[in-house]
Amino acid sequence: MQIVLDYLKQNQARFVAELCEFLRFPSVSAQPQHKPDLQNCAAWLANHCRQIGLQAKVCPTSGHPIVVAKTVRRKNVPHFMVYGHYDVQPPEPLDLWKSPPFEPRIEGRSIFARGSTDNKGQHFAHLKAVEAYLKTGTPLPCDLTLVIEGEEEVGSKHLAEFLKTSRAELNCDAIVVSDTGMPDIKHPALTYALRGIIAFEITLCGPSRDLHSGGFGGAVDNPAMALSQLLAKLRDKNGRIAIPYFYDDVAPLSAYERKEFKRLPIKDSELQKLLGVKKLFGERGYTPTEQRSARPTFEINGLTSGYQGEGSKTIVPAWARAKITCRLVPNQNPARIRKIVCDHLKKICPPTVRLEIEAGHGAEAYLVSPTSPQAQAALRALRAAFNREPVLLREGGSISIVNDFKKVLGADTLLLGLGLPGDNAHSPNEKFDLDCFESGQRMSALLWRELSHPGI
Amino acid sequence: MQIVLDYLKQNQARFVAELCEFLRFPSVSAQPQHKPDLQNCAAWLANHCRQIGLQAKVCPTSGHPIVVAKTVRRKNVPHFMVYGHYDVQPPEPLDLWKSPPFEPRIEGRSIFARGSTDNKGQHFAHLKAVEAYLKTGTPLPCDLTLVIEGEEEVGSKHLAEFLKTSRAELNCDAIVVSDTGMPDIKHPALTYALRGIIAFEITLCGPSRDLHSGGFGGAVDNPAMALSQLLAKLRDKNGRIAIPYFYDDVAPLSAYERKEFKRLPIKDSELQKLLGVKKLFGERGYTPTEQRSARPTFEINGLTSGYQGEGSKTIVPAWARAKITCRLVPNQNPARIRKIVCDHLKKICPPTVRLEIEAGHGAEAYLVSPTSPQAQAALRALRAAFNREPVLLREGGSISIVNDFKKVLGADTLLLGLGLPGDNAHSPNEKFDLDCFESGQRMSALLWRELSHPGI
Repeated sequence: MQIVLDYLKQNQARFVAELCEFLRFPSVSAQPQHKPDLQNCAAWLANHCRQIGLQAKVCPTSGHPIVVAKTVRRKNVPHFMVYGHYDVQPPEPLDLWKSPPFEPRIEGRSIFARGSTDNKGQHFAHLKAVEAYLKTGTPLPCDLTLVIEGEEEVGSKHLAEFLKTSRAELNCDAIVVSDTGMPDIKHPALTYALRGIIAFEITLCGPSRDLHSGGFGGAVDNPAMALSQLLAKLRDKNGRIAIPYFYDDVAPLSAYERKEFKRLPIKDSELQKLLGVKKLFGERGYTPTEQRSARPTFEINGLTSGYQGEGSKTIVPAWARAKITCRLVPNQNPARIRKIVCDHLKKICPPTVRLEIEAGHGAEAYLVSPTSPQAQAALRALRAAFNREPVLLREGGSISIVNDFKKVLGADTLLLGLGLPGDNAHSPNEKFDLDCFESGQRMSALLWRELSHPGI
Repeated sequence: MQIVLDYLKQNQARFVAELCEFLRFPSVSAQPQHKPDLQNCAAWLANHCRQIGLQAKVCPTSGHPIVVAKTVRRKNVPHFMVYGHYDVQPPEPLDLWKSPPFEPRIEGRSIFARGSTDNKGQHFAHLKAVEAYLKTGTPLPCDLTLVIEGEEEVGSKHLAEFLKTSRAELNCDAIVVSDTGMPDIKHPALTYALRGIIAFEITLCGPSRDLHSGGFGGAVDNPAMALSQLLAKLRDKNGRIAIPYFYDDVAPLSAYERKEFKRLPIKDSELQKLLGVKKLFGERGYTPTEQRSARPTFEINGLTSGYQGEGSKTIVPAWARAKITCRLVPNQNPARIRKIVCDHLKKICPPTVRLEIEAGHGAEAYLVSPTSPQAQAALRALRAAFNREPVLLREGGSISIVNDFKKVLGADTLLLGLGLPGDNAHSPNEKFDLDCFESGQRMSALLWRELSHPGI
């Protein structure tokens, strides 16, 4: 093992140079003019994989291609998959970048470029760990397949289908993804849960058109008021969602999880300052960390009604609309929650307006038990690589591919993010920390040993 | 008197032809290209007044001119003012007109043209009544001044100032305005009250920017939910405004008024159908007619927050805003009500968001007692002219010039509208009913006698 770690240490300068080469491709999946850049980037990546000793291919899709690289498959050894994406967010607004987004710049221990932390730098760390095994002739304790797609930033449109058609080839014991984050360099992290979601839109329809509020106001219900009163009833003064049965299936937080959360380095006062609010607010009985990652929410994302321009317009609006998303947690079923919410809305909607509900997308929450052998193996790898006690994170958002992995491949995903809060993912001046890059390579190298012998 | 009424009867055909001439001027005050048309229209009107024996002048303003026409002023006789406006709404959308808006078309007993009911036809009826007195040599029981402005449809910007500078000349015992309506031709009406108004906008500010609802949702108050809960508290289940002191100064409806309202020909079921609602809703204990004309309201005119486009965006919005107008009734003071509402909002606003209130315009309600001698004189004139029992109306909207008349000239206004609900004021195919025109002339002729001898 030491020879692998030494190889990594000795080759950092070259690795950084190679990453720069990778970052120079403007592989912006959302912008059609960059289609050739995505193809060139995929070809470069596949070629790079071959150079370090992997079998690699570029798999076309009707969108951008997927790069698949693997070690020679053996029998009777575990098989793990590394997932990443070589596509990047659009770099705009360009004038806010201190240096061109596709001309990597190194300053101190940071490498600035679009895609550096999200996600080229992160999956490249895994690639370098594999290289270290292969180039030093150290036998890998497992088979590995890297699946690096080109459509993550545009919704991974063709990945689920690809997983299905490649199921036999991709069948594995676990998936490893480095595309999340850690609170800071001193706190390497395993993200073991994600929230799910349901989205919908409710419209209350009143009069057949906007009415003159002088001529008719007072004798007809105002849909904007009816909507306010309807929505107001859905959250109680303790910040709980006031919809019957809503919490029925919510998996409670274990004492172990709550204790682990307390170790996280973010303070309430810091969070409040970061968000720019006068006062934090959430479900009573839970810490802000728990509220925003491990508890369900009912969030109004938008309100629309009547006149919104300058000055005033004296109308009773014809309708009022709210866009809503609920974040879900394990074991809430999106379809069941959607029904519970819709049924309740129908029940409490007053007879003076007509309720219309339009359903949006939905996704299940995700959870790998942090005490499972694989999670514990990951924690050991993190501890050894960063020489720090790792923390456990739950992510408040959703990463839908993780559900696809579970459904199609039947395997759990370990989210071992190498990003830092200040990395500016999706923003100008995106960067990746070179210490995270190097520690990430070590973590990856150690991970395969820990995962392949989880009992150790 | 009979000679006056006979003159009117005998000259209807000519009067209609003259009205057509008046209606041909495209005197659209809102459209700069029509400025010469307004000047030509004012000159035509002043000239017409001179032809029937009045002293008339066109008074320039920094906007469109005001036409002032009057009988020779005497001593020791009452002096009344007739107010009207020769400017009209824009005719657009033109393709919805069955005949060109400035080419008057007569069909049955209707004259179709922009400005026919609003307001050229209505004040022209008064002019024809004066003509009948002057041309038959019948002594008028009072002095009369007609003030016909050209900026009513754009907010009467220069009228208040003109009233002030012409106060000595315009000082009068009452103002008569025919610019409102009657429920139908069988129900001539005196509108004896108008509602006032206060407008304002409230914004609840939460986080310093839209937040990712996955990353932060649950630990921070959602301004759209905070706004919904704030607004929801302002109306109780009985449709009452739930703001302390709000109803303190509200003048109660008299038994006489409530009895008179019952005579109005509109049924609840018809109103419901007209508005296209499932069910009417208003303050308990009052009829829809009372609710929409004689009771104050708290009306949300618009809601704005977060994402309003297609599909969903998973954010906690940074802020949420509501545009609000309250209709006021006698004797609510706009400044006091504004303070009462603002104080209450500040009191109940939760500490998790910052409340911003932007004040808009305000206007007092207006009321002439329907049992006052002048109101009763007007009712007698209506009764005799239409040969029907007149009804009493309160108008739910505001007509701000009426407050100016009271403030500057110290006189009450009698609103004796000749418009019908189907006249399409402000809409394509505006019309004026020729029976209303003729009965209106009679009403005007009789009114001066009744008003000058209110004891009779």
